Parts: sequence; structure tokens; C-alpha cells
Amino acid sequence: MELKLSDISVKIGAALEGPDLIVSGLSTLEDAKPGTLAYVASKKYRKHIPDCKASALIVPPGIKSSSHSLLVKEDPYLGFALAMRLFYPAHHRPRPGIEESAHIDKAAKLGKDIYIGHNAVIKADAKIGDGCVIHSGVYIGEGTVLGKDCIIYPNAVIMHSVSLGDRVVIYASAVIGSDGFGYARDGAKFVKIPQAGTVVIEDDVEIGAGTTIDRATMGETRIGMGAIIDNLVQIAHNCKIGAGSILCAQVGLAGTSIIGKNVTLAGQVGVGGHLTIGDGCVVEAQSGVPNDVPPGSVIFGYPARESIHAHKVDAIIDRLPDYIQRLRDIEKKLSS
Amino acid sequence: MELKLSDISVKIGAALEGPDLIVSGLSTLEDAKPGTLAYVASKKYRKHIPDCKASALIVPPGIKSSSHSLLVKEDPYLGFALAMRLFYPAHHRPRPGIEESAHIDKAAKLGKDIYIGHNAVIKADAKIGDGCVIHSGVYIGEGTVLGKDCIIYPNAVIMHSVSLGDRVVIYASAVIGSDGFGYARDGAKFVKIPQAGTVVIEDDVEIGAGTTIDRATMGETRIGMGAIIDNLVQIAHNCKIGAGSILCAQVGLAGTSIIGKNVTLAGQVGVGGHLTIGDGCVVEAQSGVPNDVPPGSVIFGYPARESIHAHKVDAIIDRLPDYIQRLRDIEKKLSS
Amino acid sequence: MELKLSDISVKIGAALEGPDLIVSGLSTLEDAKPGTLAYVASKKYRKHIPDCKASALIVPPGIKSSSHSLLVKEDPYLGFALAMRLFYPAHHRPRPGIEESAHIDKAAKLGKDIYIGHNAVIKADAKIGDGCVIHSGVYIGEGTVLGKDCIIYPNAVIMHSVSLGDRVVIYASAVIGSDGFGYARDGAKFVKIPQAGTVVIEDDVEIGAGTTIDRATMGETRIGMGAIIDNLVQIAHNCKIGAGSILCAQVGLAGTSIIGKNVTLAGQVGVGGHLTIGDGCVVEAQSGVPNDVPPGSVIFGYPARESIHAHKVDAIIDRLPDYIQRLRDIEKKLSS
Repeated sequence: MELKLSDISVKIGAALEGPDLIVSGLSTLEDAKPGTLAYVASKKYRKHIPDCKASALIVPPGIKSSSHSLLVKEDPYLGFALAMRLFYPAHHRPRPGIEESAHIDKAAKLGKDIYIGHNAVIKADAKIGDGCVIHSGVYIGEGTVLGKDCIIYPNAVIMHSVSLGDRVVIYASAVIGSDGFGYARDGAKFVKIPQAGTVVIEDDVEIGAGTTIDRATMGETRIGMGAIIDNLVQIAHNCKIGAGSILCAQVGLAGTSIIGKNVTLAGQVGVGGHLTIGDGCVVEAQSGVPNDVPPGSVIFGYPARESIHAHKVDAIIDRLPDYIQRLRDIEKKLSS
Repeated sequence: MELKLSDISVKIGAALEGPDLIVSGLSTLEDAKPGTLAYVASKKYRKHIPDCKASALIVPPGIKSSSHSLLVKEDPYLGFALAMRLFYPAHHRPRPGIEESAHIDKAAKLGKDIYIGHNAVIKADAKIGDGCVIHSGVYIGEGTVLGKDCIIYPNAVIMHSVSLGDRVVIYASAVIGSDGFGYARDGAKFVKIPQAGTVVIEDDVEIGAGTTIDRATMGETRIGMGAIIDNLVQIAHNCKIGAGSILCAQVGLAGTSIIGKNVTLAGQVGVGGHLTIGDGCVVEAQSGVPNDVPPGSVIFGYPARESIHAHKVDAIIDRLPDYIQRLRDIEKKLSS
Repeated sequence: MELKLSDISVKIGAALEGPDLIVSGLSTLEDAKPGTLAYVASKKYRKHIPDCKASALIVPPGIKSSSHSLLVKEDPYLGFALAMRLFYPAHHRPRPGIEESAHIDKAAKLGKDIYIGHNAVIKADAKIGDGCVIHSGVYIGEGTVLGKDCIIYPNAVIMHSVSLGDRVVIYASAVIGSDGFGYARDGAKFVKIPQAGTVVIEDDVEIGAGTTIDRATMGETRIGMGAIIDNLVQIAHNCKIGAGSILCAQVGLAGTSIIGKNVTLAGQVGVGGHLTIGDGCVVEAQSGVPNDVPPGSVIFGYPARESIHAHKVDAIIDRLPDYIQRLRDIEKKLSS
């Protein structure tokens, strides 16, 4: 595909500076080829510009180059994302149709223009909205409802009575609606608590490969609108994830955790059960959250503390051998 | 379904106080509807009782309510679990039968009253006990044996020569009996060590979605009777998990770890290889265990320490900036 | 199978001491049976030798036994690995053939002597090299290329346009080439960045069950020759793993991490994005790596520090209550 910079500039909301060239794709700053459009994430990468072989660059304001046309945008990363969408599809969609080997219960309801892949299983009373793509080997349980234009990648499993909004994307081998981990002790044995609730996933949510989201014991586990969840994340029964939140890979939430809107949980973060993380919080990578966190907090550590304090503490920890020596020196001085 | 409180009280071992009403299901304390039975986990939630719209409550001894019938039980959570079992099935069991698209080797042996779902694969010399449910897309390897009434959820994989007891439940996309991670260095290359052992899973074990349990190099990896294992847990070759132990989500065990009976490993705990955690230990969330742990220990941290000490240390760490300032003040005083 | 010790000694490069017996398999030092060959990993296990019922032992130099024939090798673990290869296959390979229920696109190219299992899906323009084994339920996306003698275990998913070298092994339910976790914020919403790159896996790589390796945004995610990756590992878009590196279970790498050659990342390690870990580094279990690490480093902790320092610091942390008491004692002394 070839596009004129002037057309790109309109579509991504950037100002064109320099000749209106034709470009054939995007590239990284380091590996760019002539005829492509690269992007400069921030001014700190400006030193790489003279050597960049791309014909044009998406840049933040304040950058000049004599050898490139420029598309100037306040948020060059957003500009890059929007430009990528012009050149490449967000998802490869097979042509609508139903493969012969798919097993679709007679009591399932299928919308228009859907694709169902090889060996996919759609159980009774499931509803698949218009434009959905169900890839090979996917399992959709009894009574589960998908909105419009959802994409379910190969071998993902969505158990019974789960509800998905529109444009939800579930990547390969994710498991939605498996039983919550609920057991009561009865002497030496466990009594499994039936997991009678469900999972509700709102519009525009994306759920990564291998991620597991358990159904509620009663009521629902809910993933809010537009939340994005990476690979191998564990979300236990009855959790609520607010709209627009980001859960990076290998995050784990214990049961009945409430995550606010626009929260970021970085990679491998663990969140205890029955607690609330307020809107807009950022929890840095590998942190463990044992208590409620007020809105807007930035926290770090195990257990997680306010981030600036945690990093200050951490710098002290690194110098503890010196401090302890100084303590000993004082003791020696005082005892002599 | 509707049940009389007097019948429920007998079946869950609770004392009925107040009118013998009919209830139609369970609900949470906060979201309860009239005509349902809610439960009060402990006295600290008693403040929510006056506003609770449920008709009846499962409560610990010592709680009164003028607006609810009460089912009084020492362990209300167990009462709740048992009551849930009266209203809801622990697992949805399809009617026995074998879907046409299942691939069952002629040399496999199938018990009575089993269900085998679409595209399930059962290899030669596998034995499936009476009453088992094998859902769609499940793979059962050569020579693998399942006891009675096991349930294997969609797309789970059980490799060859694995042995499952009775009433074992394996949730979606779990992998049992994959090769252990055993390699020896031979100069610049690795020599893969054949994983000639197996996995033995005893009666009444439940294994969560996406969890991986590797086969032994020689001998067996063993999961003891009634152990419950959550989602995305990794159990390496030759580990032994004692009866009645709990492994929460994303726990990871290195090779040849021995976990005693009735041990609790909370979420994201990591356990080193070739070590023993004694019976009845509790390892708190995200802890890392590098050494043997004596029976009955409660430990926390990275690396894990005795919990009370670890939390005391942690409180000091939080105040380190202050302590270091006090150290500096002393130095200034002494040098002046 | 039965083998003479003299034959084994030649094949594993060990010196035979004692009678040239016939052995029928390997066993562990503790559970050995007569007629088998056990191994002694190092001199610290020599105390178990007198009680060991094996007929022969693989031992490091300097060990004697009056009751066993000995195979003496500098690296007994390598000797054990090589001996295991004589008795057991590294992988069970089904007889070549294509199961009827496999779905192979007309535009896919299949090599010689391959096995394709039940319900496997091979999409258009995929190429499967000679001698490959594709187990049941595997998905191979459009244009994906496998070299020779690869083994793909049940229900694994390899998305489109991925490239595998020769002798690559992918265990059950792993997902290769799912979309990278790339989104830009556009006000309250996320814009998904099309993941237009791919994954390249070089020769002799092994990838564990449930592991997820994301495709690159542009360019490639690359796993270097002979790297071994355990279960439930997350490798984000655009990461590079050097040849001969080891990633233990539940390791997580954020986007564009560069891991050098012969690096060891122990279990549950997390590595931040856009950073480089030099050749030969060892990162101890559960560590978090926030910065570049020079070649040859051994690091530990959260955040990771040079290991000897980190363990020294850790020993101090353990004694902090005592040190703080001593600080208070000094303050009291000075104020009195």
C-alpha cells in the first residue's frame, strides 16, 4: 500500500513539514528503509535522526530534519499507532463462512457475516453477534452471548453463561468463565463451592493469550469497557476491572479485588483479595498490593508503598552495609 | 429450586432460629433479594445485617436479627458452601454419550456413563473410568488412566502414561504430564534429558485453568489427595504436593520440591528446587522460598522469613529514611 | 532395553571401573533397583552410595565403591543425560501419517515423513518441513514455516507468518505469534497498534507448555539457537533471546527486552522493557530487572542488584530490628 504524507497527516492529525512524498509503510527509527515512515517517540531519540534512512518521520514539536519530511504531532506514539492502522489491519479477518467441521448446536443463534473456524464448538443457547470471528478450536459454552464484531482466537475457551460486549478480542488459549477458586474446609476435606455466577466483559476489551478470568461465585466478574489485559493474567472470581485500565502480563488478582478506572498494573503485579485500587492508580512492576489504595496513587514494592518513598527506601537499602558500619563505628567510639 | 430453612438446617448442620421460611437461592450480604438466604462470614460484618434484604441469614453464634430467620453455624463459610451445594450443582454434567467427532483409539477402554465431547482425542491404552466427563477438544495421551467421575474441561491436555484418581477435576487448557525442564550442558549445547517418569494425581484433586504440571524425569510427580490448585500454577518435574494442600494462582515450584500436607501457598509464591516445606505451613503471597521450611511455619517475604519477624522488619524498612537521618544526627553530634 | 556398561561408557565418554555388568535402565540414587544405573551428582551425595541398590553408578572422579561398578565422568549430570538418551527416546514420535480429521489447506506445503494429528489445522501457505510431528488440535497459521523435525504438542497455537528453524519443540498449549500488547492512548480510549511483525525461532529451541511469545509490532521477536524456555513464560513483542539462554518457568519479559547469549533467567524473574541483559548473566529467582545489566553479571533481588551485595544486604535486613534497637540505645546514651 502507498499513501501520500498529506493524506496521512489529515488522518492522524499531524502537521506536514517538507515535501509531500509517497510512503509504502512504517518502520522503526533504527531499521528504517527509504520510502517508509518512521517515528521518533520523544526528543531523547533525536540523535538517531540524521542516520535514519526513512523518507519521513512522525515527530514531536520542536524537531527539525533537513533529510526527512516531517509529520509533527504532540503525541508521536499516538500518531504512529494511527498511521499503523492506515497501513495494516488491526486483525486479519477471514472471509465470513462456517467451516464444515464446526459443531454448532441447533439451539445456538448466529448473527450475520460471521466466520466460524474448524472444530469450533458452539453450545446450546449461545448467541454470536453479527460480524464475529470465531477461530479454530474455540469453545463457546451454553448460553454464552457475544456482541458484534468480536474476535476469538484459536483454542480459546469461553465457558457457559458468559457475556461479551461488542468488539471484544480474546487471544489464543485464554480461558474465560472457568470456576472461581472457592472451597470451604470441612475438617480434613474441602467442600467445593459451586460457582453460580458469571463473567461480563464490556465493549472493546482485549484479553491476552493464556489469560484466565474466573466466573463469580454469585453475581459477576466484570471487565470494564475498553480495558486491555495482556497474556497470562489471572483474574479471580468476583473481581471488577474499571474501564480503560491496563493489566500487563502475568498480573494476578485474588478474589473480589476491585480495580478502578484507568488503572495501570504493570507486569507480574499481585493484588490481594477483597480490596480496592482507586481510579487512575499506577502499580509498578512486580509490586504486591495488600491493602486498599487511594485514587491517583503511584505505588511500588513488596508490599507496595507510595512510589517516591519506596524508591527512596530502596536507595537506602542498597547502602545498608555502609550505614551499619557507621553504626558500629559509633558504638566503638562510645564504648572506648 | 425452593427449600425450607428447616431442611437446609439439617443438611448443613446449623440451628434454625426464627420462622421456617422457604428460600429460592443464595445471595451476597450486600446484593441480597427477598426470598433468598445470605451469609455473614463473621461478626465484623454484622453492621450490614439491618440493611440486608435476604429473608434468612447463615450466621456465626452470637448474632441476632429481628428481620431475618437465622441458620446458626460455628463456621458460617462452610455453612454457605454446603448450602450452595443444595441449590447449585458443583459441576454441570452433560448427559452421558460420545460425540461423533471424538477420536477414540480402538485400544482405549471406556467405562460406563461417560461423556466425551466434540473433537476430544483419546489415545491407545488410555482408560476412562465410569462417570467421567471429557469435554470438547481435550487430549488424553497413550496409556493415561482416569479413575471414576473425573471431569476434564475443554482443551485441557493430559499427556501419556499419566494416572488420575477418582473425582479429579481439571479445568480448561491445563496441561498435565508435559516434559520436565531437564537439560544438561554439553559445551555450548544442551542435551535434553528424556523425561521417562510420569504424573500421579490422587483422588479429589482439582487443577485450575492453564496450570501446567510436568512429568518426572524418573519416577513421578505426585499431587496428593484432595489438594486444590488454582489457575496458571507451574509444578515442575518430580514435585510432591501433600494431601489437602492449597496452591493459589500463579504459584511456581522448581523441580523436586516437596510440599507437605495441608500447606497453603498463596498467590504468586515461588519455591526453589530440591527443598521441603513441612506440613501445615502457610507461605504468604508473592513470597520466595529458597530453603527448607519446618512444619507449621508461617512465612513471608523475598526471601521468605518467619512471618511475624518479616512484617516487623518490613515496618522498619518503611521508616528507614527516618532512622538513617537519626544515624546522621548522632554522627554530627559526636563529631562536633 | 539392556546395555553393557562398557558400551555405555564409550557412548557417554566415561571411564568404567569394576565389572562390565548389564543394566536395564536408569534410576535415582534413593530409589534405585538392582540391575539399574544410578548417578551421583556430586561428592556431597557420596554418603548415600553404600545404601544404593543400583548395580552401577555414574560418579565424578574421586569416588570409590566396593559394591558398585562405576562410570567415572567429570560432569556426572551430563553423563546421566547422555545415558538417559541411550535408554529412552527424547520424544515419542508417532508413525508418519496424516489423520483424516486434520484440516490442511490446499495451499499448504507438507514435507516428507510427517505426522499430523486429529483436528490439527494448517492454513494456507504454511510449510511443514520433513519429519515434523504436529499433534492433535494444533493450529498453524497462514504462511507459517516449520523447518525439519519440529515437534508441536497438542493444542499449541502458532499464528500466521511465524518462522521456526529445525528441531524446534513446542509443548502443549503454548501460543507463538499472538499480537504484541501495543496500544496508544487517544484521550479516554486505546488505539490498538497493528502488530505487523513476526516471530522467528531458531534451530533447536524448546518452548514450554502454556508459554506465550508475542509477534513484533514491526520486525521480529527472535529466540536464538538452542535457547530453552520453560512453562508459562511470557515474551513480549520485539524481544530478542540470545543463543543458549535458559528462561525458567513464569519468567516475564516486557517489550523490546534484549537477552544476551547463555543467560540464565531463573523462575518468576521479570525483565523491564527496552533494556539489555548481557551475555552470560545469571538472574536469580523472582528478581526484577529494571535496568541494563553488563555481561557476566550475577544479580538478585527486587530490584535486582549484584548478587553478593544483594545477599549481604539481605542478611542485614534480617537483623534490622537488632540494629534499630542499637541505634535507640545510642540515642538514649547520648541524651542522658
